[in-house]
Amino acid sequence: VTTAAIQGVRGSFSHAAAIDASDEDVEVVECRTFEDLFDAVAAGRADRGVVPVENSLAGAVQRNMDLLLEHDLHVVAEAQVRVRLCLAARPGTALEGVERVASHPVALEQCRAFFRAKPGLEPVAAFDTAGSIKELMTGESLYDAAIGSSLAASLYGASVLATDLEDDPGNYTRFLIVAGEPGSEAVAGAKTSLVFSVRHEPGSLHAALGVLAAYGVDLTRLESRPIPGRPWEYRFYADIRGATAGRQRAALEALGGVVEEVRVLGRYQERVRAGVTAGT
Amino acid sequence: VTTAAIQGVRGSFSHAAAIDASDEDVEVVECRTFEDLFDAVAAGRADRGVVPVENSLAGAVQRNMDLLLEHDLHVVAEAQVRVRLCLAARPGTALEGVERVASHPVALEQCRAFFRAKPGLEPVAAFDTAGSIKELMTGESLYDAAIGSSLAASLYGASVLATDLEDDPGNYTRFLIVAGEPGSEAVAGAKTSLVFSVRHEPGSLHAALGVLAAYGVDLTRLESRPIPGRPWEYRFYADIRGATAGRQRAALEALGGVVEEVRVLGRYQERVRAGVTAGT
Repeated sequence: VTTAAIQGVRGSFSHAAAIDASDEDVEVVECRTFEDLFDAVAAGRADRGVVPVENSLAGAVQRNMDLLLEHDLHVVAEAQVRVRLCLAARPGTALEGVERVASHPVALEQCRAFFRAKPGLEPVAAFDTAGSIKELMTGESLYDAAIGSSLAASLYGASVLATDLEDDPGNYTRFLIVAGEPGSEAVAGAKTSLVFSVRHEPGSLHAALGVLAAYGVDLTRLESRPIPGRPWEYRFYADIRGATAGRQRAALEALGGVVEEVRVLGRYQERVRAGVTAGT
Repeated sequence: VTTAAIQGVRGSFSHAAAIDASDEDVEVVECRTFEDLFDAVAAGRADRGVVPVENSLAGAVQRNMDLLLEHDLHVVAEAQVRVRLCLAARPGTALEGVERVASHPVALEQCRAFFRAKPGLEPVAAFDTAGSIKELMTGESLYDAAIGSSLAASLYGASVLATDLEDDPGNYTRFLIVAGEPGSEAVAGAKTSLVFSVRHEPGSLHAALGVLAAYGVDLTRLESRPIPGRPWEYRFYADIRGATAGRQRAALEALGGVVEEVRVLGRYQERVRAGVTAGT
């Protein structure tokens, strides 16, 4: 058994990712916020933390990129979950009786066609997908239905009134799994996540990417984030793969010579398959 | 008088940006969603649309980057607004009597120190800052106070119980102003916003940035967004400045030869000063 900290409650897509990323049985440690999640892993209250970093439709989970930098944890694995959204309600509720539908704003935004087809339904912002289903089932909620995974619906005993609400079936969330210690060298390799900032001068980003290109490593993702206190300056999160682990290390050493600062967040095995589908 | 479409209601930071970006008096056209805003400008119901694209702390307003690409509008100006957040309540309410505080999740997240210092306050997610203040003043709200601009507080007759709630005074939002037609050549220049995608092969982004560097234009922003239907492939939003307008055009023509596709969103004058401070 391994313990995995997730933000939110059981039944979330993070829960599904925790299962996907582990060869062992997973015991979930529920955290209210992502800050709490990072703290739980840092303090050893969980073996690993499950951090959603990007969705194939919505893009980067921006705040979590910042948290990776603010903490000294190590990325040891990645996971992907296909986001399938269903409409959950209390048993006995008919679809016609539903008026207010709660979920996280991002999930609501990903069900536009569903809401267009049912103009009588009012979307209600909540902090959480699985949490909105859980709250619905406690009977204190201010809404009649909630959108989340069918895993959450089944865990909390809700009825599923409609499935596959998401506009686009190509809806995947990618997670980075963090731990207090780096992954073992035997497991590590293949892929590296890093953060770097460049000098505030023309051509500096081009020069940085030139180093990676020269070493034959492939940039699979480049994401900019603002630097607090320096409006309109940015740092870059990059995922690289290809060449050998040694070659990647050499590339990162060379990168250090042309950028302002660089930090390796972790090395891990690339997850090429599309991962599990939550709740199916 | 010019008409400017904004998402949300009067008193929002978009409203402040509309005032900042215009030499004329501004009449606001309130839109429920950003989609509605783009439609209002495309249909001529407003002269211009005010689109927040990035915040110096929270980063890109991701969905709006996508909308710029999905519509055929032209960026004709930029604006910046310093985000100063205040706690608004119904007249007669004391700070001690406040239990639930509503605002947009991003605004709530930017007031962490305030909520830490007052653990009795419960944050409540809303779709809007100014809208949460407006709703509070109609008396139907499920909260006692709301966080937004002092402009909104004064427009809706709310009392301001606390000011400068934002954690970081370096909190600016940058807006792009869109219109149905490009800006006049006399006004245009200085800065260009564009979107490009690169071939899915190693070194392709580096090659694209190399063209810009070779022409001596400066990249002030590079933001990646997922390409729908192609999980883990991205397009890039770039803002460039420097050199001459003619040189920028030549650079973009050359860029077309090395990328998969490129589209100019608009040319406009750079706004170097920090812009207005909403509501002060």
